[in-house]
Amino acid sequence: MIEGVIHTPLSVFPGEKGSVLRAMRKDEDGYNGFGEAYFSTVEQNFVKAWKRHRRMTLNIIVPVGKIGFVIYDSRANSSSFGRKISVILSRENYYRLTIPPMVWAGFTGLSNGLSLLLNIADLRHDPNEVDHKDINEIEYNWDNLI
Amino acid sequence: MIEGVIHTPLSVFPGEKGSVLRAMRKDEDGYNGFGEAYFSTVEQNFVKAWKRHRRMTLNIIVPVGKIGFVIYDSRANSSSFGRKISVILSRENYYRLTIPPMVWAGFTGLSNGLSLLLNIADLRHDPNEVDHKDINEIEYNWDNLI
Repeated sequence: MIEGVIHTPLSVFPGEKGSVLRAMRKDEDGYNGFGEAYFSTVEQNFVKAWKRHRRMTLNIIVPVGKIGFVIYDSRANSSSFGRKISVILSRENYYRLTIPPMVWAGFTGLSNGLSLLLNIADLRHDPNEVDHKDINEIEYNWDNLI
Repeated sequence: MIEGVIHTPLSVFPGEKGSVLRAMRKDEDGYNGFGEAYFSTVEQNFVKAWKRHRRMTLNIIVPVGKIGFVIYDSRANSSSFGRKISVILSRENYYRLTIPPMVWAGFTGLSNGLSLLLNIADLRHDPNEVDHKDINEIEYNWDNLI
């Protein structure tokens, strides 16, 4: 794993009229306060990468479709410095992914229908705390996921 | 409208690889603290009704499908006492619906695909603060919505 990344299984309660899917409670591991919640969708085989939040902790849940995430740790003082991991989230593999500040992350759509993530973040969106790199600036074979 | 109910338009930012859809920020009207976030799905033409939260404020967003909500105000001291309203939420009609404590609410699926709501609530789920009534205990012609 990567230092500070948390992968938490979440319950789904199926019912005749519909289901209830847990996302986050304030007393759970990874919760760091509430700033903003937003959804992102990603088309199949398209890659949104790379982005690094300097201060924001992300808590990501995928209730619809399937999304592959890649996280790269470039923090010199981290026990997992230099490591890259991939995590696939979906309704069938229903987990919350907590991403700490200062690691690079990207994601890609792995479903031919809609893929939707919810991010429950501890800060409001602020472009000044986000760093960007082009997809080719950090080497990763996205076809491994696709 | 019903006293305490807030209907807030939300932005959608379309992109080539996918979209970003706002849900809630902590400085926005209707935000009352964070306790728990969860998803509910509802099948087409099925009705989940009636429920009343005694203390919880609900903030509901529908990023997928189409859901019809009915809210009934039975608060004797309310300026909208006795009133029922319906609100339809969907990606095309992208609003956040804030439902205050002590009003009755129910909802139904209006899409033949998946209909998904997110509730950002100020309290953790607690069955002791929820009242239930059977669908027929509060008169409403759900066919008006369906």
